[in-house]
Amino acid sequence: MTTRWVYRFDEVDEAQTALNGDWDRVRGLLGGKGANLGDMTRIGVPVPPGFTVTSAACNAYSSSGGRLPDGVWDQVLEAMANIETQTGKTFGDPDDPLLVACRSGAKFSMPGMMDTVLDIGLNDDVVEGMIRATGNEHFVLDSYRRLIQMFGSVVLGVADEHFEAVLTASRDRAGVDEDSALSGDDLREVIAGFKAVVERRSSVPFPMDPQDQLRASIRAVFESWDGKRAKDYRRAAGIANDLGTAVNIVAMVFGNYGDDSATGVAMSRNATTGEPGLEGDFLVNAQGEDVVAGIRQTRRIAELADVMPDISAEFTDIAHRLETHYRDMQDMEFTVERGKLWILQTRDGKRTAPAAVRIAHDLVGDGIITREEAVARISPDHIESLLHPQFDTAAKAAATHIATGLNVSPGAAVGQIAFDPDLAVEWAEDGRDVILVRAETKPDDVHGMLAAVGILTSSGGRTSHAALVARQFGRPAVVGASELEINLGARLVVVGDRQLVEGDWVSLDGTTGEVFAGRVDTMAPDLDDPALSALLGWADEIRSLGVRANADEGSDAERARRLGAEGIGLCRTEHMFFGVDRLPVVQRMITAPTESLRNAAVAELLPFQRHDFAELFRAMDGLPVVIRLLDPPLHEFLPDRDGLQREIADLRIRLRSAPDLSTMEDLLEQLEAARVTLAQVDSRREANPMLGLRGVRLGMQYPEITRIQTRAIYEAAAEVAAEGVDAQPEVMIPLVCDPAELADQRAVIEAEAADVLAERDLEIPVVIGTMIEVPRAALVADDIAAIADFFSFGTNDLTQTTFGMSRDDAETSFLGDYLANGVFATNPFATLDAKGVGRLIETALTHGRAKKPRLTAGVCGEHGGDPASIALCNEYGLTYVSCSPFRVPVARLAAAHAELASRSVEIA
Amino acid sequence: MTTRWVYRFDEVDEAQTALNGDWDRVRGLLGGKGANLGDMTRIGVPVPPGFTVTSAACNAYSSSGGRLPDGVWDQVLEAMANIETQTGKTFGDPDDPLLVACRSGAKFSMPGMMDTVLDIGLNDDVVEGMIRATGNEHFVLDSYRRLIQMFGSVVLGVADEHFEAVLTASRDRAGVDEDSALSGDDLREVIAGFKAVVERRSSVPFPMDPQDQLRASIRAVFESWDGKRAKDYRRAAGIANDLGTAVNIVAMVFGNYGDDSATGVAMSRNATTGEPGLEGDFLVNAQGEDVVAGIRQTRRIAELADVMPDISAEFTDIAHRLETHYRDMQDMEFTVERGKLWILQTRDGKRTAPAAVRIAHDLVGDGIITREEAVARISPDHIESLLHPQFDTAAKAAATHIATGLNVSPGAAVGQIAFDPDLAVEWAEDGRDVILVRAETKPDDVHGMLAAVGILTSSGGRTSHAALVARQFGRPAVVGASELEINLGARLVVVGDRQLVEGDWVSLDGTTGEVFAGRVDTMAPDLDDPALSALLGWADEIRSLGVRANADEGSDAERARRLGAEGIGLCRTEHMFFGVDRLPVVQRMITAPTESLRNAAVAELLPFQRHDFAELFRAMDGLPVVIRLLDPPLHEFLPDRDGLQREIADLRIRLRSAPDLSTMEDLLEQLEAARVTLAQVDSRREANPMLGLRGVRLGMQYPEITRIQTRAIYEAAAEVAAEGVDAQPEVMIPLVCDPAELADQRAVIEAEAADVLAERDLEIPVVIGTMIEVPRAALVADDIAAIADFFSFGTNDLTQTTFGMSRDDAETSFLGDYLANGVFATNPFATLDAKGVGRLIETALTHGRAKKPRLTAGVCGEHGGDPASIALCNEYGLTYVSCSPFRVPVARLAAAHAELASRSVEIA
Repeated sequence: MTTRWVYRFDEVDEAQTALNGDWDRVRGLLGGKGANLGDMTRIGVPVPPGFTVTSAACNAYSSSGGRLPDGVWDQVLEAMANIETQTGKTFGDPDDPLLVACRSGAKFSMPGMMDTVLDIGLNDDVVEGMIRATGNEHFVLDSYRRLIQMFGSVVLGVADEHFEAVLTASRDRAGVDEDSALSGDDLREVIAGFKAVVERRSSVPFPMDPQDQLRASIRAVFESWDGKRAKDYRRAAGIANDLGTAVNIVAMVFGNYGDDSATGVAMSRNATTGEPGLEGDFLVNAQGEDVVAGIRQTRRIAELADVMPDISAEFTDIAHRLETHYRDMQDMEFTVERGKLWILQTRDGKRTAPAAVRIAHDLVGDGIITREEAVARISPDHIESLLHPQFDTAAKAAATHIATGLNVSPGAAVGQIAFDPDLAVEWAEDGRDVILVRAETKPDDVHGMLAAVGILTSSGGRTSHAALVARQFGRPAVVGASELEINLGARLVVVGDRQLVEGDWVSLDGTTGEVFAGRVDTMAPDLDDPALSALLGWADEIRSLGVRANADEGSDAERARRLGAEGIGLCRTEHMFFGVDRLPVVQRMITAPTESLRNAAVAELLPFQRHDFAELFRAMDGLPVVIRLLDPPLHEFLPDRDGLQREIADLRIRLRSAPDLSTMEDLLEQLEAARVTLAQVDSRREANPMLGLRGVRLGMQYPEITRIQTRAIYEAAAEVAAEGVDAQPEVMIPLVCDPAELADQRAVIEAEAADVLAERDLEIPVVIGTMIEVPRAALVADDIAAIADFFSFGTNDLTQTTFGMSRDDAETSFLGDYLANGVFATNPFATLDAKGVGRLIETALTHGRAKKPRLTAGVCGEHGGDPASIALCNEYGLTYVSCSPFRVPVARLAAAHAELASRSVEIA
Repeated sequence: MTTRWVYRFDEVDEAQTALNGDWDRVRGLLGGKGANLGDMTRIGVPVPPGFTVTSAACNAYSSSGGRLPDGVWDQVLEAMANIETQTGKTFGDPDDPLLVACRSGAKFSMPGMMDTVLDIGLNDDVVEGMIRATGNEHFVLDSYRRLIQMFGSVVLGVADEHFEAVLTASRDRAGVDEDSALSGDDLREVIAGFKAVVERRSSVPFPMDPQDQLRASIRAVFESWDGKRAKDYRRAAGIANDLGTAVNIVAMVFGNYGDDSATGVAMSRNATTGEPGLEGDFLVNAQGEDVVAGIRQTRRIAELADVMPDISAEFTDIAHRLETHYRDMQDMEFTVERGKLWILQTRDGKRTAPAAVRIAHDLVGDGIITREEAVARISPDHIESLLHPQFDTAAKAAATHIATGLNVSPGAAVGQIAFDPDLAVEWAEDGRDVILVRAETKPDDVHGMLAAVGILTSSGGRTSHAALVARQFGRPAVVGASELEINLGARLVVVGDRQLVEGDWVSLDGTTGEVFAGRVDTMAPDLDDPALSALLGWADEIRSLGVRANADEGSDAERARRLGAEGIGLCRTEHMFFGVDRLPVVQRMITAPTESLRNAAVAELLPFQRHDFAELFRAMDGLPVVIRLLDPPLHEFLPDRDGLQREIADLRIRLRSAPDLSTMEDLLEQLEAARVTLAQVDSRREANPMLGLRGVRLGMQYPEITRIQTRAIYEAAAEVAAEGVDAQPEVMIPLVCDPAELADQRAVIEAEAADVLAERDLEIPVVIGTMIEVPRAALVADDIAAIADFFSFGTNDLTQTTFGMSRDDAETSFLGDYLANGVFATNPFATLDAKGVGRLIETALTHGRAKKPRLTAGVCGEHGGDPASIALCNEYGLTYVSCSPFRVPVARLAAAHAELASRSVEIA
């Protein structure tokens, strides 16, 4: 039995039967394009006749060193004969010639990577016959010169520049600017020139035999699979090299035969907004390229009903059928040749994030896809881009567009131009919004990039340092905006005839790559979109992982709850200490020389804390609120050491020139006070504060702080209980590395809580848990679980200690290089490190739950809002993730995706 | 069958047979003292007749609520009859009375915790008979009053003070100072007084019936087992409460019957030096207490041969037999009663560290113990105390002793008195040796304790803060020296009639607790002792764990090799950078504005490094030398930031009052230079340098540093190879957290090494390994092992990152409290944390060796010199430990112990 190398589009059933009905394998054998053309033929959509030479033929061709396998050509000829029968035209017949296109089509789309030859079948004789038949000399001759050029370049490897040189010469001679203005005679001259180029450059003449053209084109497509460009692309995109490409041979149809012909492209829904209804463009009496090239003014697809009502109805019906068949919004190409509609291609349409949400939602309403599929089709990136600030549509339309670069990191950013990173840091510290503008960025610039609200470069690509760092650290960025001429010496940037100096305002849209002069208004993202709400609701039905928010204030907590948070996973109580009314009290607490003075200061903090906690409880009525006890090193609350030293130096200088005794006394007093404060700051200095006296170590040293925080929590609970609010506080102890620490602090908390609850006559459970944020806590998790009511993985610190890498230091020095050079594939502070940190989490959970099977365990580091990390959290069996309020919707979706992935549902 | 409650000393075989020959169970049943008395009896050593009431009787007594079990008393009477037969004396017979002692004796010694009653059998009648028989009225009456007092206090619970009051009154009346000066009449009066005290205070009269005395004494010993004092002791010493105590009834013998009687104590060898031969004291015609009390001038045991040649010969023979029997140096008590030698007790003798070494060594030579046993008997503490500086013996003898306290942390320390920790730090920074003198220490003092060379307190005990911290951090310390009166206000300390002011010199011996005024010369420990060398050689034969040294200089390496190191486990190359001739070059390297200037500075370092490495290779000819590439953050090599800021402030002030333009210009120039340096220092500042740009991260950023260090290593190897030295360098990369880092640096090293070896025409293996010192490295050890030739666990950093605890910060703040309060049982920086850090090491080894089964793996943190940690390293299957040169002998011994323990040999 000879191998079957060729399937006609109307034989797709046979291919599918041969492959046990497996459509994925059909796509592998026939390629995505060939399979879909066959599929459309099968369901009765008018597709021009044609056939596919299989990818198996390509692989056999490659492995034999470039020989068409036995039987391929015979089967091609047989299929060509069938097309002739179906079309009534004959390949190579000047009177009624069949022309075909030869297109590559692998299983996965590799846009622009592989080759196509159109209009195969034209030769000197056929051309004259077609001119007679169509009466359109220009069209036929132009098609012919295109065939020669495509064949020369794709099949024979002649560089395009040689053809362009001929065309340019011809235009010059004719004195015209456009090829379309060339006369028939000009084109005949071009054709002769092209033929000469082919013969001179490739040593073979352009073949006059259509069969020679076809065979050589098929071989050329096969060859292109192993071209360097295609290989590079596959390596980058992770596509296997042994898939091979199929080749599709399709009868050419022409939308430019006259006014009963047309061509167009259309989406089955609005790709920008997602609204239902066809959206697209068409041209009467035109070629497909004309619609795309924008040379002629296209007409909106709605007008097709006016021009060709029957065709319009038929196309609308087909679009609906295709959408239902492929269960997604379709992007279609069509041609009307002499009153007959042909569909040339259909594929799932690209769309904006809002459209993706609307379409997925509506397809559920139309009964086309399930809720799970809808959720699976929305990517976290979609939600994320909906969460980024966007430019106000009207403001952006009115703004002065000055340049466009690569949209490498999404979001809108508005700030003042700074040309160097140190200035960016300085201005940022002054509270100014800065856009860092550089020719390109280097590792030395990272501190400035982090300080900036947006990054703009004049060179560099999608994998440039600027792009990588911006994406990693979430800064909107446009790179490679080559219109910008940066003059660092003069501290200005020239764009066209415009000059911007350092400090000028500029706006950039990292989602689109656009750059605007001045300040363009941004708008908060629209999170109340009903389609989005519905989708997130479906995501909630699917997911098993809980989603809480990190929030320290009532307003944050309210926002988090509106965005779907199921509780507070982390309230950082120290944030409450930085308020202007509180900081002096905190400083008195820290510097108190005696325990009783310290207790007095601590007591003053009680009402503040109680008030803050009460706000959180009100916002989270009926939901858990995890409150972490004081965590940071105390010196963070004290005045800046450098500032104090400068103050002392200044006072010493002023003292030298004090005009009188009273001024001198005054200065001496200030000097003494500054020196005392400096001594206090110095006494708390640490070599590595991250690893010093903080977290539970503070509570061990100053149990009065633990007591007052506990008192504030339960007094607040009692206060809101009187208002009918159901407060569910959970007290969390940070930085524990040994169960003895937890046992000590647990005893302090339990005693104080019992006192308060007795005083206030309230009965609520006292829930006490711990952070797992140093490796040892994970390693002794069984012993810790015996004492803890819950775990919360502080993955920021756990990552720092597991890697031995301070985030503050790494991100401003070597981490950028590590990411740019591929030493690290991802930033471990952005995406959970599965190999290291993840193993510790698994260890801790396994051991902790061996001791306490129903142990609640969450993640409250920044990883809680990162989709890839959320997938790991789901896999590890964590109870919940906690993230910043704005990322709660992303987390809800990502958690649903993680669940769907575990059920082997394909995720967008 | 009635239970057997009583065993005579000559029935010890029956006890052993009943317990299946298990001597340990015999010791349990009869107590340590009873078992040994029986054992001596069995081997023919003259022990006074006696018997043991079992600990089982004690337990039955306790559990029945204080009733002597049936049969006990009958069996006691039967055994007493046997003693009467053996001695020919009769219990209660005034003409020839048998007197007995009743002594407690549990399985484990509980010195001073339980009770003894001597001279049981005396009463008014017997006393008179004995006076007639002995003619020594004072002796007999004094014995009687002692019996009444002991019986009253031990059995009847009468407080001693009542008896003392009677004695005092009697002495006052007689006008004498000492009891021994009381006349017979005086004593009769005292006896009457004692009887009255007993009757008044206990409501029962002192029993005249010897059997009543005996029964009550036995019961009292049983009761004492459950006394509060004994229970507290057992809890502290970890002795089980259900062991019970046995009671030994022994015929009294008297060394004060006349000139043919004597008493003494002796060791079978010299307990101070370990030299062979008896060492001890005796007195003719005296009681045991007289020898100990030091009232009379004792005679050296050698003189016994002059006084009683036969007794001396017999005792020498017995001592030898006992030593051979018990296989260790013996501490014996003996009494000669009327020309007859009795051994009253023998036990293993306490000894100094040098004696322990000498004795263990000699016992092997004498064929008494095996080499393994000798090694097992030497504790790491013995070696360690031999390694501490000691006071020169002559200097110490001549020194002015001013006080004695508790010897809580060994070693000699000489320094200037500082009364507060801040001053101690200040002086220490000035290079002065400081002794911190405090009433007691608190956590706030820890920084001063660490800065001091020794610690001295006037109060506090063995578990005081000062003691714990001093031991943990290895500072010699004497605490609770209550003779000191510290006057903080006047900054002086009064000792007797001497005043010492702050800054005065003082010397303390933490090994003995002695304190001396002034500077007492110390001497380096004697490590060339042949016994020690032999023992350590035997340890080497036993151990399987290798021992290397951490050394950065040739002289250190030579010393390490002399002390038995089998290679260098860690050479810290940065130590080579701090030399005065090198630091400026290093600073130029760090602050170089361009790569070529940096390369130039780097090249200047090459000869320095090459020279240092060559020295190491020479010292370690034929042994491996592990060289760690540059590790610390570069700013450590730059000038101190505070100093620069002070300099700038000073320059600004001087500028204001500059007398002329040229001075001003000069100052401005200096100011500018200081500011540039400050900016450079600032640009390298890090929030947490421990976790910042250091280790392999430096090499990744500046591969030229890796290259130059590699070049220096292999050029040095070539240089010494020309001298015939076999250099075995192993290059070690620090702080790796991901295999990609190692792969990158490995490529750099391999390329440079290949260049050098080709240039120099040398062929040696290029061995490249990595530190495992952050948790992630341990977690991904399999991937790292694929690239590393060896692992070295940097347990200092691994402990810091696993606990999330900076050693610098912890040890000066909360760690002292954690240890004092028992939150941590041990300092994890001193002894490897088995639960956390140890698990990471095990994980790394398991995974690393799964990938590379013969992977060499060592430990090079300070734990490498700690015996408990070494035991863990042996258990984990590490290849070697590496420690400071002086600790190499400790490590050799500890490694042998670890091996012996794994063979279940009992370790000292």
